[in-house]
Amino acid sequence: MNVFAWPVRVYYEDTDLAGVVYHANYLRFMERARTEWLRSLGIDQSHFKDEYGLVFAVSAADMEFLLPARFDDALAVETRITRVGHVSIVFVQEIWCIGSDGRMLLTRGRVKVACLDSDTFKPAAMPHPLLEVIRSVC
Amino acid sequence: MNVFAWPVRVYYEDTDLAGVVYHANYLRFMERARTEWLRSLGIDQSHFKDEYGLVFAVSAADMEFLLPARFDDALAVETRITRVGHVSIVFVQEIWCIGSDGRMLLTRGRVKVACLDSDTFKPAAMPHPLLEVIRSVC
Amino acid sequence: MNVFAWPVRVYYEDTDLAGVVYHANYLRFMERARTEWLRSLGIDQSHFKDEYGLVFAVSAADMEFLLPARFDDALAVETRITRVGHVSIVFVQEIWCIGSDGRMLLTRGRVKVACLDSDTFKPAAMPHPLLEVIRSVC
Amino acid sequence: MNVFAWPVRVYYEDTDLAGVVYHANYLRFMERARTEWLRSLGIDQSHFKDEYGLVFAVSAADMEFLLPARFDDALAVETRITRVGHVSIVFVQEIWCIGSDGRMLLTRGRVKVACLDSDTFKPAAMPHPLLEVIRSVC
Repeated sequence: MNVFAWPVRVYYEDTDLAGVVYHANYLRFMERARTEWLRSLGIDQSHFKDEYGLVFAVSAADMEFLLPARFDDALAVETRITRVGHVSIVFVQEIWCIGSDGRMLLTRGRVKVACLDSDTFKPAAMPHPLLEVIRSVC
Repeated sequence: MNVFAWPVRVYYEDTDLAGVVYHANYLRFMERARTEWLRSLGIDQSHFKDEYGLVFAVSAADMEFLLPARFDDALAVETRITRVGHVSIVFVQEIWCIGSDGRMLLTRGRVKVACLDSDTFKPAAMPHPLLEVIRSVC
Repeated sequence: MNVFAWPVRVYYEDTDLAGVVYHANYLRFMERARTEWLRSLGIDQSHFKDEYGLVFAVSAADMEFLLPARFDDALAVETRITRVGHVSIVFVQEIWCIGSDGRMLLTRGRVKVACLDSDTFKPAAMPHPLLEVIRSVC
Repeated sequence: MNVFAWPVRVYYEDTDLAGVVYHANYLRFMERARTEWLRSLGIDQSHFKDEYGLVFAVSAADMEFLLPARFDDALAVETRITRVGHVSIVFVQEIWCIGSDGRMLLTRGRVKVACLDSDTFKPAAMPHPLLEVIRSVC
């Protein structure tokens, strides 16, 4: 099974007054990792908007926040695809803290991304070239 | 059943290049609504940190993003409590767009908030006065 | 001199691990206040994009962060216009903390907003109806 | 003169409905670059809080937003120190867009960072070991 790992560093901007990463920001980290995976596969998201009039939007997310990340932590976001439909893709993503003495799972999420018409925001079929690239890494 | 409604306006900062609210920001809107509900019940979150050494943290969130919110939209975040345990509370929250011709459901979430020791971030029992206030609105 | 005051509440999302509002977020608060001022004057920013192909963008900001805002603080953002040109407006904005025993100045900024062509992002003349409304409140 | 360059990629989360990076987010990018510079010099910010009771906070920022950054842009944040006092440091930072056909200056800022007592948030003298490291790169 293909897994894509992307490093994320925790900065001041990501933390809140409890001294840990604000929960909504883990969704940002996961989105960065999905973007970088697409980039690594040669998929240019801007191209899909300009060429096909399509955008990708998160339509559902089930998140578990198990342990907090802290300032300066070195994280790894691990991403795999568990389902590819005609109008959506389901990713499972885990955020790990990478320490000198091993790694710990902090956050786990199941994120469904839908392909939408950029004008109407209604579901739209993904173009075949895109589907082929994505299926090749499942 | 008690429902608490809190208004949120969409600003430039909330949107992304697709012209709609960035998905992670709906979690911020929901957290503002929970904070305001606690405030309306006379619960001061800072007090719980200083007095009891307790913080509240989101431990799980199941989100459905149904329709996008746009710049300048007037939203209402509706919040109800569906479960109160000794160390956690489960909220169900809906974000509605309030228009001149009616309202539309945009986002729905089930958010579990855990009471944690502010030093160890381990689950901790909620103080009785807090439990009583919360149970009074379920 | 016309001053527009807009209330802002500090939420968890606004703070960082130092326990205070993250500095970049004061710019968000100021932008909310400018947006609400335009709204109160009957100016619809979306309309300017759709009708005239114009957007407004911050082109310069001189900020002084004097005292920190904290979680739950009730702030007031006070906004005045100090210069109106053909392609830009200069705002002076102050963020005050409103307490039970008076108010304190936390942040002060001078923010220049430019009118831009929404395609080329080059400076563009503001439409006359807009200029007239803005000049009426200087 | 020492210049520290740090790469930043633009993600969806950074953009707004004008299709470009939201202005306040450039301050985040600059803060990431300052953090990484300190890290590269062996300075651990958490250590200063725990050991000396000191935090660093932005006390002033003069920003010019010249050209917009867009989704997927590869940026470089260039940082130099122009003044070191006993309680503050002044950084000059530039954000460049790195393209296949050259680079363009997008944003320029002069950012003053103050050393503060982490309890009182009053200015505090920087420890000598820190001053020596910082002076060595000016």
